[in-house]
Amino acid sequence: MIDDNGVQVIRIGVLGCGNVGAALVDLVRTQADTVEQRTGLRLEIAQVAVRNMSAQRDVDLADGVLTRDAQSLVTDPNIDLVVEAIGGIEPARGYILDALKHGKPVVTANKELLANCGAELYAAADAAERDLLFEAAVAGGIPIVRALRESLHGEPITRVMGIINGTTNFILTKMTDAVLGGGDGDYAATLAEAQALGYAERDPTADVEGYDAGAKAAIIATVAFGAKVVAGDVYHEGISRVSGSEISIADRLGYCIKLLGIVERDAESHEVSVRVHPTMVPKEHPLASVRDSFNAVFVEGDFADSLMFFGRGAGGAPTASAVFGDVLDAAINLRRETHGSLGVLHEAKLRPIDETEAEYLLGLDVVDEPGVLHAVTGVFASHGVSIRVAEQEGNGPEARLVFITHSAREADVQATVRELRGLDVVRNVGGLLRVIGD
Amino acid sequence: MIDDNGVQVIRIGVLGCGNVGAALVDLVRTQADTVEQRTGLRLEIAQVAVRNMSAQRDVDLADGVLTRDAQSLVTDPNIDLVVEAIGGIEPARGYILDALKHGKPVVTANKELLANCGAELYAAADAAERDLLFEAAVAGGIPIVRALRESLHGEPITRVMGIINGTTNFILTKMTDAVLGGGDGDYAATLAEAQALGYAERDPTADVEGYDAGAKAAIIATVAFGAKVVAGDVYHEGISRVSGSEISIADRLGYCIKLLGIVERDAESHEVSVRVHPTMVPKEHPLASVRDSFNAVFVEGDFADSLMFFGRGAGGAPTASAVFGDVLDAAINLRRETHGSLGVLHEAKLRPIDETEAEYLLGLDVVDEPGVLHAVTGVFASHGVSIRVAEQEGNGPEARLVFITHSAREADVQATVRELRGLDVVRNVGGLLRVIGD
Repeated sequence: MIDDNGVQVIRIGVLGCGNVGAALVDLVRTQADTVEQRTGLRLEIAQVAVRNMSAQRDVDLADGVLTRDAQSLVTDPNIDLVVEAIGGIEPARGYILDALKHGKPVVTANKELLANCGAELYAAADAAERDLLFEAAVAGGIPIVRALRESLHGEPITRVMGIINGTTNFILTKMTDAVLGGGDGDYAATLAEAQALGYAERDPTADVEGYDAGAKAAIIATVAFGAKVVAGDVYHEGISRVSGSEISIADRLGYCIKLLGIVERDAESHEVSVRVHPTMVPKEHPLASVRDSFNAVFVEGDFADSLMFFGRGAGGAPTASAVFGDVLDAAINLRRETHGSLGVLHEAKLRPIDETEAEYLLGLDVVDEPGVLHAVTGVFASHGVSIRVAEQEGNGPEARLVFITHSAREADVQATVRELRGLDVVRNVGGLLRVIGD
Repeated sequence: MIDDNGVQVIRIGVLGCGNVGAALVDLVRTQADTVEQRTGLRLEIAQVAVRNMSAQRDVDLADGVLTRDAQSLVTDPNIDLVVEAIGGIEPARGYILDALKHGKPVVTANKELLANCGAELYAAADAAERDLLFEAAVAGGIPIVRALRESLHGEPITRVMGIINGTTNFILTKMTDAVLGGGDGDYAATLAEAQALGYAERDPTADVEGYDAGAKAAIIATVAFGAKVVAGDVYHEGISRVSGSEISIADRLGYCIKLLGIVERDAESHEVSVRVHPTMVPKEHPLASVRDSFNAVFVEGDFADSLMFFGRGAGGAPTASAVFGDVLDAAINLRRETHGSLGVLHEAKLRPIDETEAEYLLGLDVVDEPGVLHAVTGVFASHGVSIRVAEQEGNGPEARLVFITHSAREADVQATVRELRGLDVVRNVGGLLRVIGD
């Protein structure tokens, strides 16, 4: 629409008015003049669809802007662009498909939807020749999707590793601080503290068991490698079994423990591995410096070498900032009658977790008697797992052996663990921690 | 051009075949198939213009690709897109203007040119309705320009701070490691080591005195704030006066010393401050973890909060990776008959360095006698500079006072320093170090 002053107005319809929706409305309002100066486009919030018209909201909306009819919003010819901020799979999926069919570019922050139905939605956007942008779906305010889609779209990316869940990074940071301060860094107590501070949900499962990070990892793999990867393809382990004593061992050996989402592609077989698990990160690695609820994504490519993107992974304002960047982009593209695209996605050849390779840390509680180390190392050797570091802590009934392997195949390490559990001299086998390798 | 298979071919003309030009040619060749699969575009190196046809090069070029005639290349209707990789102001400026006039998008990594003639070139690109992309001109392989141009173009950015010179970061890292290892961290010896390793030029002035970082800061300010800022507007101090003892004091107080390029805009007056100087960075700040020759850019915005972009700031391959990302973008835009733009740039209201505010660290060698601290603090007070930390190291003839101020105006601190130099009890006034504040 062209207004009375000859300025092109982009009328935005927003689905949902929670934290992100409200912050976006605020951002559009405060930045409208600046945007108009720099782009000649006037952004306007035309409609906001909510389920409950009478709920208290943190935002002032003009009369008539609020509606309960999301379905009409996405087909309304007076809406130029749709922002989906309701989350979940349905009805969000249906609204987005309808909006695209009606020629409206869509901006979404919905990681669950994209990690499950992404390929369908990207194809629908291409068919409609409209943008489907989703910067905020991965790592909130950090522009990693754009970097992968655009800056690095010609780069042969080998691996992406991300701290992409703020809750778990907050908990691991607090546990580590406690352990280094002489405390025990208990997981359950730290989780309770995070819940009290609002950093963790009352039901923390999606965060602490790695589901949230897994959905984001699936999206990252799709964008980085052009491969169809869905949430269900992602191997994930959470942080609920990480103990203070593991953090302490890691620290002594020069590592800290982070929950990483890792996507890798083998240069020759083109197999893609997508997984989420607690990882030993060398202290001098840039990911090690990412504290509290911050997120960061570390990208390795043949030419660009190492890149890291750091910032706020969640929160209304940072997420809205990413959504707003997408809105502006989509608005500019709409005026120019162009749109972005992920290109043609291919079926992913997934590498099963058993076939992945890493260095591993393994702690064993053992009986301290002559020949124990010999018996234990024999088990490693029989599965072809070679040991890089072996250490004994304490002695007598409290003896503990800690091993770091050279790079080994997951299946071989798991077989080693199974056999170790059967040894008489082994009293307990601790969790397995993978170590960042080159 | 459409080839025999119906694929659109983008014929690239490259000006210059040094490290970056050669790595780009290599990248185009190795990635051509992948790019064609994902975009339907075939990238082809059509011509490479060099000064010396017979020089040894690290790259194989088909017969007839190499030329000495750069002027014909930029006007040749058989060239679709031009990459400028020769550096310097002229003749690069003329070639770029001609290429744009002839309808060719241009990709450049030329920070010197953009920091001096950017506004003219951006306007020429807008007039020609073609892309002028320059990701590699700031921080090499790190996609910070795109982040500022696109992801954050609606974000009210308040400050950008960058480690944007790899040479000086390498030197400061080595000096710091030496000091923490008990050595003296001598600047001259470390510079010589960096030169021997190829991290510093034989004439290191452009790097160590902050000229290189200053040019990049000018470009960052232009992109972040839409303001015309040129290299000559940038206040810069280099690292040649940073001493091991300053690094040691900073360490003890919880800081490390980094050479930062800082661009800020005052929310109310819209005054822009652009400067490069050694800075005390709190150890827990993400910029503190950036070691060796890596670069990083830390962006603060009202909504996105804090973001950091980390990676390789230089080197043929990382720089070529950034150039290649721009080439792909420009190629896609060319097919769609669209182009990016920085929008309308406004004249910058520059804030003189005297008017900027920061916390400062100042070290004084003093005579240790009663009343000295009183006399010295009186000078601070008389200029309205308030003290946050005061410490005395040693005593007798070796006594040293170290102060950190609260946020103060540069002019007031400079006046304080001048007056302190005149005091009988002050034997020497050390360098002034600014501290990162909120």
